[in-house]
Amino acid sequence: MALRTLSAKSAAALDQELMSTGAFSIDQLMELAGLSVSQAVFKLQPLSKGKRILVACGPGNNGGDGLVAARHLFHYGYQPTIYYPKQSKNDLYQRLKKQLQDLKVPFTDDFPSALKSADHIVDAIFGFSFSGEVREPFPSVIEALRDTKIPVLAVDAPSSWNIEDGPPSEGPGKGFMPEALISLTAPKPLVKWFKGRHFLGGRFLGPEVAEKYGLDVPKYEGLDQVVEVPVEGGKL
Amino acid sequence: MALRTLSAKSAAALDQELMSTGAFSIDQLMELAGLSVSQAVFKLQPLSKGKRILVACGPGNNGGDGLVAARHLFHYGYQPTIYYPKQSKNDLYQRLKKQLQDLKVPFTDDFPSALKSADHIVDAIFGFSFSGEVREPFPSVIEALRDTKIPVLAVDAPSSWNIEDGPPSEGPGKGFMPEALISLTAPKPLVKWFKGRHFLGGRFLGPEVAEKYGLDVPKYEGLDQVVEVPVEGGKL
Repeated sequence: MALRTLSAKSAAALDQELMSTGAFSIDQLMELAGLSVSQAVFKLQPLSKGKRILVACGPGNNGGDGLVAARHLFHYGYQPTIYYPKQSKNDLYQRLKKQLQDLKVPFTDDFPSALKSADHIVDAIFGFSFSGEVREPFPSVIEALRDTKIPVLAVDAPSSWNIEDGPPSEGPGKGFMPEALISLTAPKPLVKWFKGRHFLGGRFLGPEVAEKYGLDVPKYEGLDQVVEVPVEGGKL
Repeated sequence: MALRTLSAKSAAALDQELMSTGAFSIDQLMELAGLSVSQAVFKLQPLSKGKRILVACGPGNNGGDGLVAARHLFHYGYQPTIYYPKQSKNDLYQRLKKQLQDLKVPFTDDFPSALKSADHIVDAIFGFSFSGEVREPFPSVIEALRDTKIPVLAVDAPSSWNIEDGPPSEGPGKGFMPEALISLTAPKPLVKWFKGRHFLGGRFLGPEVAEKYGLDVPKYEGLDQVVEVPVEGGKL
């Protein structure tokens, strides 16, 4: 049976609850989210298959998760490169960026060139708060992600997909189907249209809050912060 | 060859550097430190050997690491119990406590009773900033840790040990030798006197800052946030 999903509105409410009554700081949650993402990359792309990971980061929390993931990937032995064209002035993101710079992780503005020398891609451009139009400079990036043969792991949502209604019927994301998706905390309704490997991350959700939001807490293995779960079609 | 060690003074300076120019927040560092501790417990005490983990937390950062570790242990399937008699009013610790309360993790004031029903103990009472005397209510707790047959994992230092000079020659900690020690970021000079299994945690130290402080970055395996390292005698 498929895991229950969380609408964009409920996902925002849950995040807000975790950070208010739940007493988590955004630093904590983003660290754990990014750690989950890095572990999914490790499972999809063992070091022996190629170490060059291109992490495409958007301007919001999804991008922050990507920045954290990149740092952990560096420590696992990967060679991450960051594409982060719309950098937030927010203190947290600035700090996450500095942490990567101190590790000499390169930032690039040239997505097409970076793509040519990547073994794997993390799409951390847009997350569950995305709606509406894909703004510059991301249309061509999403087209490139759609067209590349390099495997892509999308964080929370394939960027440009509608959170509730799935793949767009027009625009740069039309036909974009990443190889893998990691849903953070809970899958969003768009997973119904997703065909690929599906991971769940965010091993911090307690039974009480899961019940309140009508979510499943999947069975993680050992120390893993990520678990592979069946896609809607149950093909796992 | 033994890993190079970090004096109490240098450890404080490194923490300060990580949180200033290094741009880490204490929330982030404590999350990663506590995660390391939880992984060391998992390696020492597999779930099949007994799930009841008593986490003894002191009033400072060492106690905070213990609180974070306890939360992760809960999510792995353990049943942590917290002894935290001198609770900090600091917002971070209050939040870490609330996160545990939301998981219904019990807090106890009765250390002797809690000890009787524990399968494993985490000593997160004093860390690298400890010096001088063991204050109430901790003398009897440290005596109990010294005398118990239940295995103890000490975080950064066996509590009451002098960070530079090792085991005390008098007082409650005289003769206290935990089964295991996890050094966070780098071993402290006291490891010279430690006989037991020794882990290192803190997989966030970059090559530059490690070099600046004259530290070794050990080879972690896979996704592990913790690595077992030889004790001074090289007995691993």
